[in-house]
Amino acid sequence: MLSEEMISALIQKTDSKILLLVMDGLGGLSVGGKSELETAVTPNLDALVKRSVLGLADPVAPGITPGSGPGHLAIFGYDPVKYQIGRGVLEALGVDLDMTDRDVAARGNFCTIDADDVITDRRAGRIATSLNEKLCVKLSNQIPTIEDVQIIIRPGKEHRFTVLFRGDGLDDHLTDADPQKEGMKRIPTLPLEPAARRTAGVVNQFLDRVKAILHDDHPANAAVLRGFAKYPAIPHMDRRFGLRTAAIATYPMYRGLAKLVGMDVLKTGDTFSDEIRTVREHFAEYDFFYLHYKKTDSYGEDGNFEMKVKSIEEVDRYIPELLALGPDVFAITGDHSSPSALKAHSWHPSPFLLCSKYCGVDVATRFTERECARGVLGKFHAVDEMTLMLANALKLKKFGA
Amino acid sequence: MLSEEMISALIQKTDSKILLLVMDGLGGLSVGGKSELETAVTPNLDALVKRSVLGLADPVAPGITPGSGPGHLAIFGYDPVKYQIGRGVLEALGVDLDMTDRDVAARGNFCTIDADDVITDRRAGRIATSLNEKLCVKLSNQIPTIEDVQIIIRPGKEHRFTVLFRGDGLDDHLTDADPQKEGMKRIPTLPLEPAARRTAGVVNQFLDRVKAILHDDHPANAAVLRGFAKYPAIPHMDRRFGLRTAAIATYPMYRGLAKLVGMDVLKTGDTFSDEIRTVREHFAEYDFFYLHYKKTDSYGEDGNFEMKVKSIEEVDRYIPELLALGPDVFAITGDHSSPSALKAHSWHPSPFLLCSKYCGVDVATRFTERECARGVLGKFHAVDEMTLMLANALKLKKFGA
Repeated sequence: MLSEEMISALIQKTDSKILLLVMDGLGGLSVGGKSELETAVTPNLDALVKRSVLGLADPVAPGITPGSGPGHLAIFGYDPVKYQIGRGVLEALGVDLDMTDRDVAARGNFCTIDADDVITDRRAGRIATSLNEKLCVKLSNQIPTIEDVQIIIRPGKEHRFTVLFRGDGLDDHLTDADPQKEGMKRIPTLPLEPAARRTAGVVNQFLDRVKAILHDDHPANAAVLRGFAKYPAIPHMDRRFGLRTAAIATYPMYRGLAKLVGMDVLKTGDTFSDEIRTVREHFAEYDFFYLHYKKTDSYGEDGNFEMKVKSIEEVDRYIPELLALGPDVFAITGDHSSPSALKAHSWHPSPFLLCSKYCGVDVATRFTERECARGVLGKFHAVDEMTLMLANALKLKKFGA
Repeated sequence: MLSEEMISALIQKTDSKILLLVMDGLGGLSVGGKSELETAVTPNLDALVKRSVLGLADPVAPGITPGSGPGHLAIFGYDPVKYQIGRGVLEALGVDLDMTDRDVAARGNFCTIDADDVITDRRAGRIATSLNEKLCVKLSNQIPTIEDVQIIIRPGKEHRFTVLFRGDGLDDHLTDADPQKEGMKRIPTLPLEPAARRTAGVVNQFLDRVKAILHDDHPANAAVLRGFAKYPAIPHMDRRFGLRTAAIATYPMYRGLAKLVGMDVLKTGDTFSDEIRTVREHFAEYDFFYLHYKKTDSYGEDGNFEMKVKSIEEVDRYIPELLALGPDVFAITGDHSSPSALKAHSWHPSPFLLCSKYCGVDVATRFTERECARGVLGKFHAVDEMTLMLANALKLKKFGA
């Protein structure tokens, strides 16, 4: 396998443009004989397939269900096993928190404890998000700093929140301050390395302060924290691939993942139509566009087969508009599968379509799981999608003489 | 993945014979709906497919365009990322220079410099090959040695030539003595390691001598050198696979690559018919024959779709003659693709066909890119072709009990 450095050494800059559409959680499963993609009426995708090549990509490895982080990193050409992103960081990205390299992020739950500090409900009865927001304001006001460490708290949905500990010399080698089970006492975080001792102290002071402040807020009368993580230093796409890259996404998590690999995150609206307009407005400025469509995953995770089908059909209607932008390479895939039948992310490989002047032709006739399985790209690792896109954009020199 | 040693440990010698036909740059791209292979009329290949298995092989990795060196090494069972061959060595092989382990090879260009030693034309106006030959004789006569290092100069085409520096203790950890741009001064080579200091001194003396000797030979009044490389020590095929191997090729580069892995290079004529006669004459003496056909690549690189089609049809006519030799395993593939549409090597995987008594049967109906994509061998790494050929020749024992 070529190392990252070997691939970087092959990069040549050209004027060509790559447009990558990620339909989140795209792959599905057959229910009564047809998957979501097979059920959807997609005249524009069907026409596109005639001049594209198809395949099925494993985001991580056969049988491994990826989170959104590994799923996206693979598509961006980053080995998701090498570049593992801490849970706390993903949470922070998901609530649109800008992280610095002085931060340790953690994922928090409000929880219910009894008089003996025993956790009786790890989710505090799934309190309303509006209450969560109020509690986060209260905590933010009362705990602006601990020692010289700044505390940044951001509410999530229901009982979930994110904390950033911002200060010099913080370390994320910490155990979870969360017994992960009900009926057990709250536990402090422990340093896994001597360098993390001070951070552990700050975190544990924070949790004790939270408990004191929320004393009368039953059922949300304490908190647990887990997934402590610093912002990872990942080589950016401009350095690795010589690309000016732009991300267009309506959800914070995907904007955050794009920022992690050095993409410019473009301001856009709430709809797919807004996103496409944003691509159009900036088309001259970048070489690579990552365009994210969320609904395929949302409906998959809801188990809503019919609406996942409809969301695929929505994307299909916009295909001519995307092609009209004139990308030299146009690719469509998912970061992972989210079959309605499973109501969750799954391990099934992602359908992948690539269209370029030099992509060749395929025997596959539709952009579906089964047709992709017999596509000329075969079954491959999603991390190779980036080299395939770069090759088709004529941005890679020959390896060896 | 099995290591080289693990595969070697499985080798068992049998009387079976493997014939590998490499159609250089075989894979192509559809123009108006059909690729070169799809357009060619190939009754003999079509008949062969009925008792063969097919697949598509990536010489290096998806999206990576291989040079001839990596492309061939992979087919011979050598990981092309592990065994990288320096540019200078490939040049030397290409002009039929016999290298020893005391040599450092470099690729040279005659160039034009002005009075300030600034390069005004990196290719000296692409001088005629005949002039190049005269200049090389002149330099050879006047610079037979530098210190105790023997200088061996061999002309290439137009402005290109190859130099071997032959002596004890030479080292190839050297920077290019080539600014790679016009409008810049000539630069000396620099040692990248202390052990290469003396070699750098010899190379730089050589370049200064060349400049002095060519003073009145404008436009070819100086030279640049790059790709310094020693002859690599690659474990030979007899040791790795227990095979007596023979190479039959009309071009020096391919004979050189075969020699690199320890094949006996058989003397042959200029035509494919000559090559086949050579195989026949030596059929009793070897276990493995590498037969190289060049024209598919030449026409692909010329962008001559029609002639690439005709060269495929030429090979087709010789298939019965090759089968009449009675190889136990007959395989056909390319070292890389060279689609006429790209006029260059490309990243597209190579069609692969394998016929043996034990290969099984396929659903694929023709030896084309699309049919190979649905072949039972699937999409695989070209480096695995060797084990597939050995297995079908019953030359591999069981792994584990």
